[in-house]
Amino acid sequence: MTATATIDAARVDAAMRRALELAARGPAVGVNPQVGCVLLDAHGEIIAEGWHRGAGTAHAEVDALSKVADARGLTAVVTLEPCNHTGRTGPCAQALIDAGLARVVYALPDPGEVAGGGAERLRSAGIAVEAGPQAEAAAELLRPWLTSARLGRPFVTVKWASTLDGRAAAADGTSQWITGAAARQRVHEQRAAHDAIAVGTGTVLADDPTLTARGDGGAMLGHQPLPVVFGTTPVPADAALRRHPAGLVELGHRDLERGLAELQERGIRRLYVEGGPTLASAFLRSGLADEVLIYLAPLLLGGPRTAIDDLGIGTMSQALRLSIHRIETLGDDILVTARPTPPQE
Amino acid sequence: MTATATIDAARVDAAMRRALELAARGPAVGVNPQVGCVLLDAHGEIIAEGWHRGAGTAHAEVDALSKVADARGLTAVVTLEPCNHTGRTGPCAQALIDAGLARVVYALPDPGEVAGGGAERLRSAGIAVEAGPQAEAAAELLRPWLTSARLGRPFVTVKWASTLDGRAAAADGTSQWITGAAARQRVHEQRAAHDAIAVGTGTVLADDPTLTARGDGGAMLGHQPLPVVFGTTPVPADAALRRHPAGLVELGHRDLERGLAELQERGIRRLYVEGGPTLASAFLRSGLADEVLIYLAPLLLGGPRTAIDDLGIGTMSQALRLSIHRIETLGDDILVTARPTPPQE
Ligand SMILES: NC(=O)c1ccc[n+]([C@@H]2O[C@H](COP(=O)([O-])OP(=O)(O)OC[C@H]3O[C@@H](n4cnc5c(N)ncnc54)[C@H](OP(=O)(O)O)[C@@H]3O)[C@@H](O)[C@H]2O)c1
Ligand SMILES: NC(=O)c1ccc[n+]([C@@H]2O[C@H](COP(=O)([O-])OP(=O)(O)OC[C@H]3O[C@@H](n4cnc5c(N)ncnc54)[C@H](OP(=O)(O)O)[C@@H]3O)[C@@H](O)[C@H]2O)c1
Repeated sequence: MTATATIDAARVDAAMRRALELAARGPAVGVNPQVGCVLLDAHGEIIAEGWHRGAGTAHAEVDALSKVADARGLTAVVTLEPCNHTGRTGPCAQALIDAGLARVVYALPDPGEVAGGGAERLRSAGIAVEAGPQAEAAAELLRPWLTSARLGRPFVTVKWASTLDGRAAAADGTSQWITGAAARQRVHEQRAAHDAIAVGTGTVLADDPTLTARGDGGAMLGHQPLPVVFGTTPVPADAALRRHPAGLVELGHRDLERGLAELQERGIRRLYVEGGPTLASAFLRSGLADEVLIYLAPLLLGGPRTAIDDLGIGTMSQALRLSIHRIETLGDDILVTARPTPPQE
Repeated sequence: MTATATIDAARVDAAMRRALELAARGPAVGVNPQVGCVLLDAHGEIIAEGWHRGAGTAHAEVDALSKVADARGLTAVVTLEPCNHTGRTGPCAQALIDAGLARVVYALPDPGEVAGGGAERLRSAGIAVEAGPQAEAAAELLRPWLTSARLGRPFVTVKWASTLDGRAAAADGTSQWITGAAARQRVHEQRAAHDAIAVGTGTVLADDPTLTARGDGGAMLGHQPLPVVFGTTPVPADAALRRHPAGLVELGHRDLERGLAELQERGIRRLYVEGGPTLASAFLRSGLADEVLIYLAPLLLGGPRTAIDDLGIGTMSQALRLSIHRIETLGDDILVTARPTPPQE
């Protein structure tokens, strides 16, 4: 039995929780996953921490290794299987081998075809490798990135705001403001946590939205998502969107799968679909929503302007079933975060 | 300073909370309010408790008095101003005077034109009278009864079930089951807590509902609300409603105010409006909903069958504003309990 084998499971678990906290400090947007890493000595004490700060910067393992003079015999606890891929940085698996680590524990396997194989490379070099601690929490943190990696398209969040009776506007089309200030602020934060925001041409023409991510006081947030317009109608020359700091993508068509492929191509991994009803319904109907955010305002409107229109559902057994992930109150509004459940067999 | 005056406010408050607990043991249905009473000795110790068990039985004060041999010099703490009215039982104010009480503390004044004046009668007899402790909690417990007493019509609870996008049925009309077992069980309990259930003729014809209040295992609950049908179409001769244990009221018209007056006349103080969409919308549109219960199932349906149809609202500023009283999860469903807020000036 080597010294490293004496680090008990509870300590490794605690180290992994810490690594997840570090991972969450990294940006949720961009093509790379959020990863955290801690290095443990033979007693299981954390002696170095690292995390990934976004594409082009050091990976979490390398960041942690940079903090110690001698890593020989240490245990690395890392939230994702070390990569085996030479991109803008070298493969982390090799860096760990070169540094002389004794053991590597990771939460989740790397699903990528390019980056995978790190565990295998470590094992071949004689390093003890284990997977599994805090796998669920890691999968939750990385859900958008993992989904995008698995499906080869951006993770899609569909958001809408409605009254408690499901209306997005009054009969005359007025809709400002359905939700209150706290809910609207949350929307800005969610925009900043996505790579791109999609709207249909209907919303562009009706609302001339800016689609920027702004703070409480109106100032621009650090990350500005790319605005993307689905639909065939051109965006007017004087539209506010044309002055968006992140640029503008006019797809010029209505094909959602094709649009997502084009966005994936541009490095978009998380797409925030802000509506209107036609576009949101199209994403839901096509089974392309990975997460649904429903803001419910304490209002009733009745009338024809539903927030969701036709979903192509004929009978109850075909209803789109969601699993509720969270229910929050934001000021007077309710935010329901839900995920489509796989169709029942 | 008399001995009774030494009972401090905190003790009186605690006694009132106890009296409210006792009040809640009484039936929420029927023409009489839920009332509880405790008798305190000179040290503020509770020496007797009483509550009202429904029309025709002793009032709370008389129930408490019946438990002591000699009530002279005691303090009565009672949730509602003692009545001054000779109905099926004599006026409680007189019973307290006859028993020789020294002091009476109540939470809420009696709003009734017939029963009011109890405090005045007590004072004239030289009894120390105070109002106010736990007034808010008492008003919450008695909200339906107080509303009904104030407005001279039944308290109206409008309930509906919808998907998160506000649909009550799929395009083909199927709607079983939108909500799950826990929500459906709660509906049965709510039925049992109302004097009557209202539906429109559309629901009778479409669903042939039984509208009984049943327990988990299907057994009838103790109290069965009276089913009431709004609308001009006759209830079919073979409708399940014709076998309802509490009887059946067919109003034969669509006039909500007139219908409520007829129900008030029959001793109905709490009405549970179960729909469908036309009737629920009519109650909301007329400003006749005192409480709104929205069951939201984790489903999306889209399509034409909204749970609420037209509310006669043209523009956002006319939206019917609710204040959220409670948000619960029942199995996979969400129950939002809300109250219409008075229109803003
Ligand atoms: N409550 C909310 O959360 C919310 C959010 C956003 C907007 N809104 C409101 O929604 C209203 C606009 O409604 P809307 O439904 O017209 O807006 P929309 O969904 O933004 O735009 C609809 C248009 O998008 C195009 N489109 C792109 N992809 C499509 C697809 N796959 N299927 C069908 N059409 C596609 C079509 O136009 P082309 O002919 O150009 O192809 C279509 O007419 C505005 O009043 C706005 O205020 C509400
Ligand atoms: N999701 C839910 O919570 C829920 C609850 C109950 C029912 N439902 C569903 O609702 C569907 C029936 O819908 P519905 O809207 O036809 O049912 P409804 O509201 O029960 O009945 C509508 C009928 O009630 C009469 N009525 C009475 N008072 C009225 C008034 N003030 N204004 C207008 N009409 C009045 C009218 O018929 P007359 O011509 O006879 O006067 C009207 O056609 C069924 O499929 C049922 O399953 C859903």
